Amino acid sequence: VLVSTESTGPTRGYTASKDQLQARLRRIEGQVRGIHGMVEEDRYCIDVLTQISAIQAALDKVALALLDGHAHTCVIGAEPDQQDARTAEMMAAVARLMHRG
Amino acid sequence: VLVSTESTGPTRGYTASKDQLQARLRRIEGQVRGIHGMVEEDRYCIDVLTQISAIQAALDKVALALLDGHAHTCVIGAEPDQQDARTAEMMAAVARLMHRG
Amino acid sequence: VLVSTESTGPTRGYTASKDQLQARLRRIEGQVRGIHGMVEEDRYCIDVLTQISAIQAALDKVALALLDGHAHTCVIGAEPDQQDARTAEMMAAVARLMHRG
Amino acid sequence: VLVSTESTGPTRGYTASKDQLQARLRRIEGQVRGIHGMVEEDRYCIDVLTQISAIQAALDKVALALLDGHAHTCVIGAEPDQQDARTAEMMAAVARLMHRG
Repeated sequence: VLVSTESTGPTRGYTASKDQLQARLRRIEGQVRGIHGMVEEDRYCIDVLTQISAIQAALDKVALALLDGHAHTCVIGAEPDQQDARTAEMMAAVARLMHRG
Repeated sequence: VLVSTESTGPTRGYTASKDQLQARLRRIEGQVRGIHGMVEEDRYCIDVLTQISAIQAALDKVALALLDGHAHTCVIGAEPDQQDARTAEMMAAVARLMHRG
Repeated sequence: VLVSTESTGPTRGYTASKDQLQARLRRIEGQVRGIHGMVEEDRYCIDVLTQISAIQAALDKVALALLDGHAHTCVIGAEPDQQDARTAEMMAAVARLMHRG
Repeated sequence: VLVSTESTGPTRGYTASKDQLQARLRRIEGQVRGIHGMVEEDRYCIDVLTQISAIQAALDKVALALLDGHAHTCVIGAEPDQQDARTAEMMAAVARLMHRG
């Protein structure tokens, strides 16, 4: 039994898929460690860059899943008088993900 | 004495700054682990997203440093008859970093 | 009196700022024409690329403004039974803007 | 006979494909004008955003072609004592295209 699914913390946009999200983060952590190993072994620059692009794709996928959960749960699900503030906050996060924040 | 600076592997675009590059990768690995911890503690989605944007900025910085070293060392420094092929390879890496590869 | 503010078309997320949006689009159109002129005059590649980056920044700004209006008006403002579908549609647009769609 | 192919201006990375580049820029200019028309007709926000993503993809394609020509012609083709400076300049352009400049 995983503790994470039994926790009684606040409900977040990612609560329903928390185990999957943590598995993805562990995999990304391993990918970064893998790049460290490639550099240790003096591997070819272009091969290292290809791996960095793969990590960026994986991180973007995590970010989009988090945003999606947030929008459905924390924005639409918010009290009506909080929805505008939550939307503004979400849009600032989108701008940062587009490197424009 | 760090083994990495004594290695006799092939010279890469990042060889001169290998220790700095590895330190950056360790830091990024720690940042990913930090996000795992934030999710474990059910932290607010937007705060998790902000950290993901910070990792993406750090990875882009590493990628640009690798590209820069590669261009100066492996492209310009290549034998004349290899420079075109090396340039094509580098441009494919740039396209992937722009998510267009 | 601008016709656009008198139109009786459907209300969109950008309706309140339609004139400003159209002015921005005209400016971007002029910037693209300006690049055409730079190429005509055989201007330096790097200067052309700098202008392309400026257009991309301007387009991203327009996209973020459209998304923001859409989220506040068309997602939050939708009938409750339509909000999930509208959110999914918006997230697909965000993925495309991040070049991940 | 197109004047552009008869000009005697300086040779740039895009000189060999200048007509194709200008045709692409005209098409992008038309796409921006098309978005202006969509806004005029109060079209759905998401459809406008989809068109903006299409323009960004087209602009990125132009940028990558310019970079490629620049690298092959102006960087590799430069006098040896100018290659490092040209490379640094190119890398700054890449950083701007990744919205990190």
